[in-house]
Amino acid sequence: MQNNSYILTVSCRDVRGIVAAVAGFISSLDGFIIEASQFGDPVTEQFFQRIYFSAGAATPAYEEIKKRFADEVGIPFAMNFHLHDMSKKAQTLLMVSKFDHCLNDLLHRHQVGSLPMDIPAVVSNHEDCRALVEWHNIPFYYFPLISADKKSEQEAKTWDIVQKHKIELVVLARYMQVLSADLCTKLAGKAINIHHSFLPSFKGARPYHQAHARGVKLIGATAHYVTDDLDEGPIIEQEVISVDHTHSPEDFVAVGRDIESRVLARAVKYHIEHRVLLNGTRTVVFK
Amino acid sequence: MQNNSYILTVSCRDVRGIVAAVAGFISSLDGFIIEASQFGDPVTEQFFQRIYFSAGAATPAYEEIKKRFADEVGIPFAMNFHLHDMSKKAQTLLMVSKFDHCLNDLLHRHQVGSLPMDIPAVVSNHEDCRALVEWHNIPFYYFPLISADKKSEQEAKTWDIVQKHKIELVVLARYMQVLSADLCTKLAGKAINIHHSFLPSFKGARPYHQAHARGVKLIGATAHYVTDDLDEGPIIEQEVISVDHTHSPEDFVAVGRDIESRVLARAVKYHIEHRVLLNGTRTVVFK
Amino acid sequence: MQNNSYILTVSCRDVRGIVAAVAGFISSLDGFIIEASQFGDPVTEQFFQRIYFSAGAATPAYEEIKKRFADEVGIPFAMNFHLHDMSKKAQTLLMVSKFDHCLNDLLHRHQVGSLPMDIPAVVSNHEDCRALVEWHNIPFYYFPLISADKKSEQEAKTWDIVQKHKIELVVLARYMQVLSADLCTKLAGKAINIHHSFLPSFKGARPYHQAHARGVKLIGATAHYVTDDLDEGPIIEQEVISVDHTHSPEDFVAVGRDIESRVLARAVKYHIEHRVLLNGTRTVVFK
Amino acid sequence: MQNNSYILTVSCRDVRGIVAAVAGFISSLDGFIIEASQFGDPVTEQFFQRIYFSAGAATPAYEEIKKRFADEVGIPFAMNFHLHDMSKKAQTLLMVSKFDHCLNDLLHRHQVGSLPMDIPAVVSNHEDCRALVEWHNIPFYYFPLISADKKSEQEAKTWDIVQKHKIELVVLARYMQVLSADLCTKLAGKAINIHHSFLPSFKGARPYHQAHARGVKLIGATAHYVTDDLDEGPIIEQEVISVDHTHSPEDFVAVGRDIESRVLARAVKYHIEHRVLLNGTRTVVFK
Repeated sequence: MQNNSYILTVSCRDVRGIVAAVAGFISSLDGFIIEASQFGDPVTEQFFQRIYFSAGAATPAYEEIKKRFADEVGIPFAMNFHLHDMSKKAQTLLMVSKFDHCLNDLLHRHQVGSLPMDIPAVVSNHEDCRALVEWHNIPFYYFPLISADKKSEQEAKTWDIVQKHKIELVVLARYMQVLSADLCTKLAGKAINIHHSFLPSFKGARPYHQAHARGVKLIGATAHYVTDDLDEGPIIEQEVISVDHTHSPEDFVAVGRDIESRVLARAVKYHIEHRVLLNGTRTVVFK
Repeated sequence: MQNNSYILTVSCRDVRGIVAAVAGFISSLDGFIIEASQFGDPVTEQFFQRIYFSAGAATPAYEEIKKRFADEVGIPFAMNFHLHDMSKKAQTLLMVSKFDHCLNDLLHRHQVGSLPMDIPAVVSNHEDCRALVEWHNIPFYYFPLISADKKSEQEAKTWDIVQKHKIELVVLARYMQVLSADLCTKLAGKAINIHHSFLPSFKGARPYHQAHARGVKLIGATAHYVTDDLDEGPIIEQEVISVDHTHSPEDFVAVGRDIESRVLARAVKYHIEHRVLLNGTRTVVFK
Repeated sequence: MQNNSYILTVSCRDVRGIVAAVAGFISSLDGFIIEASQFGDPVTEQFFQRIYFSAGAATPAYEEIKKRFADEVGIPFAMNFHLHDMSKKAQTLLMVSKFDHCLNDLLHRHQVGSLPMDIPAVVSNHEDCRALVEWHNIPFYYFPLISADKKSEQEAKTWDIVQKHKIELVVLARYMQVLSADLCTKLAGKAINIHHSFLPSFKGARPYHQAHARGVKLIGATAHYVTDDLDEGPIIEQEVISVDHTHSPEDFVAVGRDIESRVLARAVKYHIEHRVLLNGTRTVVFK
Repeated sequence: MQNNSYILTVSCRDVRGIVAAVAGFISSLDGFIIEASQFGDPVTEQFFQRIYFSAGAATPAYEEIKKRFADEVGIPFAMNFHLHDMSKKAQTLLMVSKFDHCLNDLLHRHQVGSLPMDIPAVVSNHEDCRALVEWHNIPFYYFPLISADKKSEQEAKTWDIVQKHKIELVVLARYMQVLSADLCTKLAGKAINIHHSFLPSFKGARPYHQAHARGVKLIGATAHYVTDDLDEGPIIEQEVISVDHTHSPEDFVAVGRDIESRVLARAVKYHIEHRVLLNGTRTVVFK
């Protein structure tokens, strides 16, 4: 990403003239369009667009762009829009339990610079991943679930972290505890989970064992936004890998680690690059 | 496949000495092992093997091999076994409704020699595919479902074809009518269906539309043995393909044609090469 | 594709204001943008765009749109642009030798309506595919190479067909004869070949045998524009498939048929939907 | 892998009776075959087999098994054979330069137990990866190339490590220095390199840049045994990933990290599970 550049995402009812209005606005700012994608859904008649542009000599500051866009384009077209200043990295909270393959993968990608985000904290309900996290010089918070009735206390601690660090994205990197309806609501559209099956097959617990029992020839992983309805959130990314009769359920678990890591990493990348827009219970992903 | 060659498939309880006994038997016949695959399932403790061997100067005729194998190996190890004479092609009945992409694909593969089977007949409940089938010089039988209560009559005609041609494999190449429990039972382990979803997701009707509604990022096709329990039969082969937000349900249908054709063709090939063995409700596929 | 709709493709030097100008023009015509893709190459500083739009009540006829676009946008931005009337299907000539798998695949896709093109003729240097082509009610022209010094005569006959039918695309669907430099030049950017390897590996003859000798674990197919420099033309599409030690060169040939067919079909589809733009010796493909 | 189990790999001229002899031998030891794969190459007429078996009550110790097998089967069939005691993990030396993605991936897989090997040392010609290696409690040896004429000194230090730790496998995990012909010879069949292209395309330096210039639509990675002839060694594993016109050479590098890591990890796994047998300049890989 270039400095002094912005990503604008918009959605609105699909009518004539939107593209001309948006592009005309950027042109009027002396902006230069680096990348642009758009989609008009013929069924819902909704229009979606993502524009990545760099500022020119005459481009005003962030707040001024935003205000002007609202006045000149956003409000007239009744748009839902966001303007992202690309000099600011996404503040991201990772949550993990015991299995550390997704965590290790995300931390490594972050370290080599392929995921443009800040990770001010990692939260876990177990101590297992502390050493890995701290080796990356990231604060590790251990918030165990002491008893079932203490769940709201545990979640309150997590929520404090979210607020303190102005977290824009929560990544459940194999966090094996269901979030409460309340927390799901608060994090709507900004929490990504990795489920270790090709949803909607094998929802719930032990999906690899369910898959083995059914005798499938491919196993999968699904990254989706977290909603109150377990494993039913909008899907961002999926991938499968071949298995055969020689694989035990434990082999599925081992083979699955790779695709879980990859699928989650891609979903996180799409999100923090503002490539994912919600279209009802489905997603538009501008790759 | 070589002339004067055989494929032996066996399954039995997994104990010491099976491989030595089977290989020793083939050696005693002066046979030469061209290809061999085996699998011991640690969970069910069942053993599965497929051996493709050519006859030597001292190898007796088919019936004699079979009898001797039963006496010397099959019965002592309480085996379920089959000996296939590779000079005989599998007698295969294709069944189709209106969509002809799987049919066209199978007929073309048959024509270029990549599927070693005979197709003495194609049965359909519609007339749409007659021209294509007859162009391949294969008899086309039109058995429509005149009314719901005439289903057993319709199926009786199909069953006559099966018996008359000593059909060993029935392929439902997008045959859009559910077989009766009775016919499923008669064809157990010798009828393959292609379902246009990645089972167990989206069973039943209009799977592409179900998939679109859920917003999945991959769509699939599944070839499985037909059982009385719809779309629950043992899976032989599966494949998926990427889709995105720009695909309508109709696009899923179009994209899906390719994977349906491929998945079905592979499953048919595995079956007629005797690579598929049943392991309960799952399959062992020696690729 | 909708009736009364157009695809506009443009390329030019990447400067500020292009998108606004193009979208503004379509808006001024009362047009509705159905699909739009763009790409600015940071290295060559070239801009590429494809816009699919439908006409509105106030949209003039094809020639008038074209003239006005040239005056108002094309000439000012020094654009290379094309306006395609989507009510006109691409006139496509297929050329084939003996292997008919790509031909069969293309004809079947054409028949089921997934490739929006007209096929006024098929040209071959062998008689093998005549029956298949004529079954599809398409004229088949047999232009054999009688002797090496008669090549220009043979190509002149093909060129006559091209001119007579105003052919916009020539597809070499396993046409196993090298086109002359002269014909390559005449067909620049409108002839697609399928090469049966993952180019640039294994150029020239018998690529599957070359691949087998090298012991690769994947084999591929490449669809590219034909140029005078054999197997060096701009690549449109590629795909690979896994192979292993059990595959003979003949197995590579058999397995390869599937990917050749698929890769060629996709490349043809991209071309006739005007999704492919040349960027020097590389392509921009708006999928 | 079970304790008290062995993997036997054999290759020899393909004649009648081998399988019976090998299986009969294991049976005579009271061994139980857990997994067995075999391949007869019809071209070279070589036979290859891998048998994983567990010892029974009457099975003698490793040396005795080996001696008896040589006497009873190995010598009579003129076999090249190896018997691996599965209670002993493969002693593996990793070599790396600056890019640590393959290293991080291998160390993580090792840590979670999916790669059954010991890593007594990591050797590098740079200091960059020291912290990561030492965090895993593995000794890190920094052997820089001080000047071109000191290469043999540098390699002598590496060779000392190989001998001291009885290294059975050397993994060049993005080690960006060419080994001398002498070291290649000493490590023949026991050094694996990852090349960041789909060989044989784009041998040598900067393969991603070569690939970008050619405009390919897929990029790849290849794991192969190291030989004196650069990038020409027997291929163990390959994988590709789609790219398009929007990817710069730097994007190829980033996308390629994932497939390099995966391909190398699979090749290492196949090697240390004794699944790879050499067949001239090609490999047999029993997956």
